[in-house]
Amino acid sequence: MKKSNYKNCYTENRICVPETSLPRVVVVGGGFAGLSFIKKLKNKPVQLILIDKDNHHQFLPLLYQVATSGIEPDSIVFPYRKLFRRYKNLTYRMAEVMRVDPQRNLVETNIGTVEYDYLVLATGSTTNFFGIESVARFGVGLKSVTDALDIRSHLLQNLEQAAITCIKEEKEALSSVVIVGGGPAGVEMAGALAEFKKYILPKDYPELRRTDIKIYLIEATGKLLGEMPDELSNKTLDYLKKMDVEVLLNTAVEAYNGEIVKLNNIKFINASALIWTAGIKGKAPEGLDKSVENRQNRIRVNRLNYVEGYNNIFVIGDLAVMETKKYPRGHPMVAQAAIQQGRKLADNLLALLYNKEVTEFEYRDKGSMATIGKKKAVASIKNLRFSGFLAWIIWSVIHLMSIIGVRNKFLIGLNWMWSYFTYDKGDRVIIRKYQPKKGNHHEIIKKAFELKN
Amino acid sequence: MKKSNYKNCYTENRICVPETSLPRVVVVGGGFAGLSFIKKLKNKPVQLILIDKDNHHQFLPLLYQVATSGIEPDSIVFPYRKLFRRYKNLTYRMAEVMRVDPQRNLVETNIGTVEYDYLVLATGSTTNFFGIESVARFGVGLKSVTDALDIRSHLLQNLEQAAITCIKEEKEALSSVVIVGGGPAGVEMAGALAEFKKYILPKDYPELRRTDIKIYLIEATGKLLGEMPDELSNKTLDYLKKMDVEVLLNTAVEAYNGEIVKLNNIKFINASALIWTAGIKGKAPEGLDKSVENRQNRIRVNRLNYVEGYNNIFVIGDLAVMETKKYPRGHPMVAQAAIQQGRKLADNLLALLYNKEVTEFEYRDKGSMATIGKKKAVASIKNLRFSGFLAWIIWSVIHLMSIIGVRNKFLIGLNWMWSYFTYDKGDRVIIRKYQPKKGNHHEIIKKAFELKN
Repeated sequence: MKKSNYKNCYTENRICVPETSLPRVVVVGGGFAGLSFIKKLKNKPVQLILIDKDNHHQFLPLLYQVATSGIEPDSIVFPYRKLFRRYKNLTYRMAEVMRVDPQRNLVETNIGTVEYDYLVLATGSTTNFFGIESVARFGVGLKSVTDALDIRSHLLQNLEQAAITCIKEEKEALSSVVIVGGGPAGVEMAGALAEFKKYILPKDYPELRRTDIKIYLIEATGKLLGEMPDELSNKTLDYLKKMDVEVLLNTAVEAYNGEIVKLNNIKFINASALIWTAGIKGKAPEGLDKSVENRQNRIRVNRLNYVEGYNNIFVIGDLAVMETKKYPRGHPMVAQAAIQQGRKLADNLLALLYNKEVTEFEYRDKGSMATIGKKKAVASIKNLRFSGFLAWIIWSVIHLMSIIGVRNKFLIGLNWMWSYFTYDKGDRVIIRKYQPKKGNHHEIIKKAFELKN
Repeated sequence: MKKSNYKNCYTENRICVPETSLPRVVVVGGGFAGLSFIKKLKNKPVQLILIDKDNHHQFLPLLYQVATSGIEPDSIVFPYRKLFRRYKNLTYRMAEVMRVDPQRNLVETNIGTVEYDYLVLATGSTTNFFGIESVARFGVGLKSVTDALDIRSHLLQNLEQAAITCIKEEKEALSSVVIVGGGPAGVEMAGALAEFKKYILPKDYPELRRTDIKIYLIEATGKLLGEMPDELSNKTLDYLKKMDVEVLLNTAVEAYNGEIVKLNNIKFINASALIWTAGIKGKAPEGLDKSVENRQNRIRVNRLNYVEGYNNIFVIGDLAVMETKKYPRGHPMVAQAAIQQGRKLADNLLALLYNKEVTEFEYRDKGSMATIGKKKAVASIKNLRFSGFLAWIIWSVIHLMSIIGVRNKFLIGLNWMWSYFTYDKGDRVIIRKYQPKKGNHHEIIKKAFELKN
């Protein structure tokens, strides 16, 4: 493993990486899947090249807390270079992948190309607006730290505007938030906002009455947390209702103009913020045969995570869709599936190199959980069901254990304790202003009313 | 103090604020000066309207630590609405002041106008590039949290680029930083970067040799920390030299193209980052008679902080220049002067309203200090001079005490302890990418070389 040989630098527009005699595995994306793959190959006889457009891993399950000022972004991220300090066989390059060239075994990035012996795509997923253009334009997803910070600034800026307007409809719109999607992300976001409304707003914004402020959670199916047993879904609904969240089940969003949400049942909601957690799709890079992609832009893989028709390209995590008897439409796009696939692929790759037997991936569902508020959570683990304080403790412990870095665990734990005892949150500050994607305020309201009639 | 009367909302484009029978004091800017003024008038018989474009107070003395990933931005800011929860006589409005209209006693902002009985301008200062356009364009100041985050992203992005280039001159430029200005801000920035270079870089960037990375501190006069006794200035120079910072005294920057710094002694330095701390100027709003501004855009005030020629407009803090015998060119633009002026003006305003005697402002110099690195600081307090560990403890304690909020004190104290014991820093992450203000990389280097010849 000669780490100092950088002869290839810049020749033929190549990314500068060490030249070794080891098989080179290029990993694109350092999320849950990529990371768990890499961790199993630490200082093993393969050369790892990690390519990611961000210089840090993001712990996405806590994004909603960043969006609601509960914790700071730096607590849920971890820089790759620090993470991989003791990996003698890994090189990290900050780059954006433009295209894969399977004929020439090349990955093309914005800083040059890199050759691979094996390619592992772990680029994950992005928000899926299902083609509803107006929502894609005026709504915000919740899939990255930048999204979370945008939501935070957007909500706080709206409240400042709400504080100074006297037009009833404007005040209502500016202080309301519509969350679309009743999965864990939507439920947790709604709960956190409800607590923000209850504990922070009356103190911080004497100009607003609590009745001005409405939080809506909209779900297209008949239940929240679709993956959960009905008992826990109902419990969640109870919690949210008690926390003053208006939950609309069997309801879909048809359009949004930045001010007014149009629902499928010909109803309208005034809200200047729409957070979309109702769908995700794969972030497949260009270059692979289009036939391997499904309708959600996920890439079809076999039980060994090989992409159909390629003998050295693997996909793991959210981007992979592995159709099995038990999961005919692929595994759920969750952290657990990504982590398990990453680890399995690492084992299989080593087996392959050592001429040992490879084994098929088998997903072990460890259950699911969601936190709704202080001492309010639901968890379904194997055949056990928890709710309330116990579920909340389980949720907190598991999330603290999963996050990378002693410092991060410490900071988050501290923030949680602070909130627990003070009923306060972290600093709700607008560091970078959010530019709402809308035109003239009044103009848009006018148009929306035309839409109504 | 009727807080619910918002009749004036939006009529005549007015900002919506409560109507009271109390004299209305509009304060523009919630920095050290504005804040200390407001604090003294808590629940006193005046109506306070605070206008600031940011929704939070910023503790600027620790900006350099945010820029070097030592602490997070949220630790040095505090939201106004939280700060003023118990102020029954204060209304905060997030707005940017466009103009003052002294004839009509109006402040014009981007969200409407507001009438005042008394106006207190505390808008502070901004970076002064002294008309060196190329430096203003390609360099970065260090006067706000956004500046600090820009510097952080910029430096980290440069290092990622440095790691992959093999062109010696490019590598050198990308891993070097030039800091201009040998005052406390420049010295502290240089020291923090030197520690980053020593403890973090070799571990995080095996691609870079320590000799590739250079930190320059450039000062136009013959000594660092001009306000300090020579003994401490020399000590500071010693510290920095030992920490491998190249200090260039009696040197001025003439031009910068984003890659190469041109000095007045016909020398050149390759550096892709230039941090300018060499000067500040007042941020005077439009509308006052131009004759009251000095060459630094500061506004001339008398010993009661009245602006010359106006009987209800005051200026305090960095923006005010009060020419006295002891300070013929005004007081130093530092936190202490701002805080003392704010408090004094509050006292005088109350005296004015109660028909008591007003008294002239007298600056009490409490001394100055700067920290260079771990256990390395200098402090000059009255006739006492400290350096080394003791000065470092004094510096740390005073800064921790001065920062607003228990939570912030706690977070910063914790971060400092963490760095102290681990020789590590906070997460060096690029959350929002910095767009360097430069064109094509190679193109600019070429041009700069033409410049050399």
